[in-house]
Amino acid sequence: MSLSSIHSPADLKQLPLSQLQPLADELRTYIINTLSTHPGHLASSLGTVELTVALHYLFNTPDDRLVWDVGHQAYAHKILTGRYAQFPTIRTFGGLSGFPKMSESPYDAFGTGHSSTSISAALGMAVASRLQGNTSRRHIAVIGDGSLTGGQAFEALNNVGLSRANILVILNDNGISIDRAVGGLNQSLTRITSSRRYNRLKEQVWQRLETTDDGLRQRSRSFFQRLTHAAKTIALGNTNLFEALGIRYFGPVDGHDIPALVDILQRLQQLGGPMLLHVVTRKGRGLPMAERNPIAYHAPGQFDALTGEQISHAEPGKPLRYQDIFGHTIVELAERNPAIVGITPAMLTGSSLNIMQQTMPDRVFDVGIAEQHAVTFAAGLAAQGMIPFCNIYSSFAQRAFDQVIHDVALQDLPVVLCLDRAGLVGDDGPTHHGAFDLAYLRPIPGITICAPSNDHELRRMMYTAQLPGHGPVVIRYPRGASVHPDWQCPLEEIPIGKGRQLRQGSDVAILALGHPANDALAAADELQATGLSAAVYDMRFLKPLDTQLLDSIATAGYRRIITVEDGVRLGGFGEAVAEYFVEKHPAVVDKIRILAIPDEFITHGSVPQLKHDCRIDRQAILDAARI
Amino acid sequence: MSLSSIHSPADLKQLPLSQLQPLADELRTYIINTLSTHPGHLASSLGTVELTVALHYLFNTPDDRLVWDVGHQAYAHKILTGRYAQFPTIRTFGGLSGFPKMSESPYDAFGTGHSSTSISAALGMAVASRLQGNTSRRHIAVIGDGSLTGGQAFEALNNVGLSRANILVILNDNGISIDRAVGGLNQSLTRITSSRRYNRLKEQVWQRLETTDDGLRQRSRSFFQRLTHAAKTIALGNTNLFEALGIRYFGPVDGHDIPALVDILQRLQQLGGPMLLHVVTRKGRGLPMAERNPIAYHAPGQFDALTGEQISHAEPGKPLRYQDIFGHTIVELAERNPAIVGITPAMLTGSSLNIMQQTMPDRVFDVGIAEQHAVTFAAGLAAQGMIPFCNIYSSFAQRAFDQVIHDVALQDLPVVLCLDRAGLVGDDGPTHHGAFDLAYLRPIPGITICAPSNDHELRRMMYTAQLPGHGPVVIRYPRGASVHPDWQCPLEEIPIGKGRQLRQGSDVAILALGHPANDALAAADELQATGLSAAVYDMRFLKPLDTQLLDSIATAGYRRIITVEDGVRLGGFGEAVAEYFVEKHPAVVDKIRILAIPDEFITHGSVPQLKHDCRIDRQAILDAARI
Repeated sequence: MSLSSIHSPADLKQLPLSQLQPLADELRTYIINTLSTHPGHLASSLGTVELTVALHYLFNTPDDRLVWDVGHQAYAHKILTGRYAQFPTIRTFGGLSGFPKMSESPYDAFGTGHSSTSISAALGMAVASRLQGNTSRRHIAVIGDGSLTGGQAFEALNNVGLSRANILVILNDNGISIDRAVGGLNQSLTRITSSRRYNRLKEQVWQRLETTDDGLRQRSRSFFQRLTHAAKTIALGNTNLFEALGIRYFGPVDGHDIPALVDILQRLQQLGGPMLLHVVTRKGRGLPMAERNPIAYHAPGQFDALTGEQISHAEPGKPLRYQDIFGHTIVELAERNPAIVGITPAMLTGSSLNIMQQTMPDRVFDVGIAEQHAVTFAAGLAAQGMIPFCNIYSSFAQRAFDQVIHDVALQDLPVVLCLDRAGLVGDDGPTHHGAFDLAYLRPIPGITICAPSNDHELRRMMYTAQLPGHGPVVIRYPRGASVHPDWQCPLEEIPIGKGRQLRQGSDVAILALGHPANDALAAADELQATGLSAAVYDMRFLKPLDTQLLDSIATAGYRRIITVEDGVRLGGFGEAVAEYFVEKHPAVVDKIRILAIPDEFITHGSVPQLKHDCRIDRQAILDAARI
Repeated sequence: MSLSSIHSPADLKQLPLSQLQPLADELRTYIINTLSTHPGHLASSLGTVELTVALHYLFNTPDDRLVWDVGHQAYAHKILTGRYAQFPTIRTFGGLSGFPKMSESPYDAFGTGHSSTSISAALGMAVASRLQGNTSRRHIAVIGDGSLTGGQAFEALNNVGLSRANILVILNDNGISIDRAVGGLNQSLTRITSSRRYNRLKEQVWQRLETTDDGLRQRSRSFFQRLTHAAKTIALGNTNLFEALGIRYFGPVDGHDIPALVDILQRLQQLGGPMLLHVVTRKGRGLPMAERNPIAYHAPGQFDALTGEQISHAEPGKPLRYQDIFGHTIVELAERNPAIVGITPAMLTGSSLNIMQQTMPDRVFDVGIAEQHAVTFAAGLAAQGMIPFCNIYSSFAQRAFDQVIHDVALQDLPVVLCLDRAGLVGDDGPTHHGAFDLAYLRPIPGITICAPSNDHELRRMMYTAQLPGHGPVVIRYPRGASVHPDWQCPLEEIPIGKGRQLRQGSDVAILALGHPANDALAAADELQATGLSAAVYDMRFLKPLDTQLLDSIATAGYRRIITVEDGVRLGGFGEAVAEYFVEKHPAVVDKIRILAIPDEFITHGSVPQLKHDCRIDRQAILDAARI
């Protein structure tokens, strides 16, 4: 039976055990071939092929609930659950989501995208089943060792142990999150796997037995067997926080050995209550280049399906990505200012903070998937005179909202929060769009919020943020390419709360925040050609708003005032401008048109497509300007 | 030397060890006497008196950094660090804060109020010291076992283990957070303290030795000593997640035995690197009624200093608190609707969910201080047909912002989020005001946000929220008394997104959201007396806004339109109304006056005082109405 004839796990269950590995091989080849031309999350999905086959072979999905933490390892799951033919549409507009999604399939028991939520969700389902009188349903959370560093996973484990729920946590341990996994937990898992302490102890005991006389040996052997059994439990326990939390621990088992997986999972199916199975896998399994460099092959873009060679689309002279501008500039700043340190929650490569780590490793801190800790840790550093640049993807920073308020802003500490992947991120979709940051940060007192319109502006904002004399600063910038190929401008101060006029005009004013200023400039060019004179303002700061500049705009006689931003409309930049006009210039409010992300979750797709659909692209500016 | 002559820890350090306990006794009496008439956090502070004396006796504060997690146990710390005379002003307007506050004293190394931040902050300081070349400074985080259930504490511990920083985590283990501590962690700590497994193992080994011959006994004794030493490490380790995370563990030590504390702390001072000291204390220590019932004496209000008897200010016929309306109503609803469950992150009593727990314990879940888990756990329950009411204090819900977006709203799950302590909470101050909720929730697509103006409305909103056919609902209500003594109105549906007119009028319209509607009614009465006719609208819903009602208001010819809310202005209710008028009724925007919490952190004090200062009270409405 070939992969294409597996229409659901029911088909899979027809196969004899011996045919599962050939099927897994075919599945792996299909993932590699498809992703070589349709980019996606490669290495994580390759690591879970056998585990996925074993789970769907044994468990009664979708009635049994299977929750994939983060979800970027769930491609094999999608293919085996009726989405084989659609798989090449993954992450494209209108196609399959790159993550599990409840509305996409009944087999996707819970939507994910952000990490460390799976145990909480599966526990909720397990408790629901118990309350509903269903004692046979199984609830499985598959969570990586990287995701386990997120505090929420610990909060959930603390509740799992005492529950009487049928929940099986599968720890997918590959030593890697997106970058290499960090922290005491990771070391602890390594210790469990090698179990050196237990082996050493057992050896000592049996050696000692050789020296005792015959009769005693008999009696003692029995005692020592019991003792070593206890010691085994204890020694494994010593490196095992799961048992410390009251959860039965099983494993480790080789996550690429299907018979072994099937065997242990079958045995666990006989047991009730909360359990954890430790599965050791290799991220990138089956593609040698990905196994050797799982970080580069986390989401490698296009590559050669046979050799694994990544296909570069870099063009010489093309502008760098914003993240690289950040990565290079923080090194320049840190070389001059010894107070600067860099912090990332597990996005060393994604944030380009790896550039700084290579040159000054003592001043870069990868804290694991731990946004809350990252921000308060930064606050602690700042309380003692350091200038921490804490770089978090915008949508993940939602995890640290309370810490930004409670630990940073309330204490007016000079933490620089750099929010990468702000605005619409494209393929990763609604869980990953950095759409809310402007709206949720603006209400926080005493915080400065800015957005660079290009690479030079990012450099200037970073330079300004590390100067003495002000409190917390947020700099948010998008995924992808910046503007100028010659990005290395001098590092100059920008006055806090001051925007700038990029282009003169008389009919229409376009007020942009951040990167959309480039669309505003393009639109102004096009309007010029049609005889409409459009002024363009790069407002730079959401907070403090440049009210002086707004006063001059309100009184300049424009027939239309357009605001454009790549954030949500409710509570965002356009509303802030409108609010100011309501208070100070009510006569001009009928001239305002706000272009922003509408009040709905935005799907996945290409950024131009999504900007078009949200009516925040160049065309939308043109349409709003035509009076 | 008496307590009043201790002006700083330097004075304390002059005392011989033998005088520390008498001083601690005096300190305890001073706290009890003061709080009996000036209410505050009693039981936690009584539990840490000896620990505080020992820490300031030995450590070189404020150069050594001492961070108190949550901070409600830091009263003895405040008294010993130069705030003896001011102590009776605690939690009053202009007086001492109820929590550590950097701007109040150099001895308050880091401000707290929310839980589980101390290890992150202390680690930040410790890393800063190392980078600054200071190898002698000590950094101490004192954290309760309850706070340790917060995921951020685990994120921090995961980083502490691998750091080379001088950080000492003191685990203040009393088995209680505010309610009784829950979860596997709590059980694990109990196991460590009793160390039963180790004792049993050791006993077995020594008993076995009695049976062996003389020569062997000699050799074996030495071996067994080594073995049991290893077993001790291992057995303790088994119940010890700290060592699993690579942190050296010391203790447990009696937290009320000053010589023992001084002894072990002195020895730890000789060591560098990350350490954890497990201190066992009794919450409420020294006041028998508080020891017996630490939950009731967490913040008992006024009480008799000698007997401990709480002084009740309850008046028969007085309206119940909003929290009690919630607590009674959820039981009524749950009796009719078997899908309803209640969830609280460690605020069983504070949310009055203890009422439901007493009658249907299987359907109430206290998940520990774990707001993130609470919300995703609720989402998991809802994904399987349950209707979870998840009750979180408004300011603590900031911790679960991402989960509300990512797990609840994005999947359109029928979770009912009840935010207690919304608006200004009074004495607890800026860390605890529920000021931001309206602003940070409004941008989330698909979520319904409402605020009851009284107890009847709260009941109707709770009833409506559990009806089938809609997604997530947020109900936010304030701390303290509701309105009607006869709160038991019938449970009736409110149309989602529909406000109501409470009072007719022609000159001025007052649009209120939530409890401030009562101030609006009072103001309208007063305006009537001065000849101004004021209409009052109870808008009920921030989202969806009742645009039909707003249309009628905009076109009714009012000379002024006032909005009033107990949340922040930026991104809040008033701005939402203004925004709608900008779009649909620009001609009336000059009539709008927004009354909301200004863009600054609000200090502690009485609620009327703070409302007055924020210009959101009855008087502010009167002032805004006078045309």
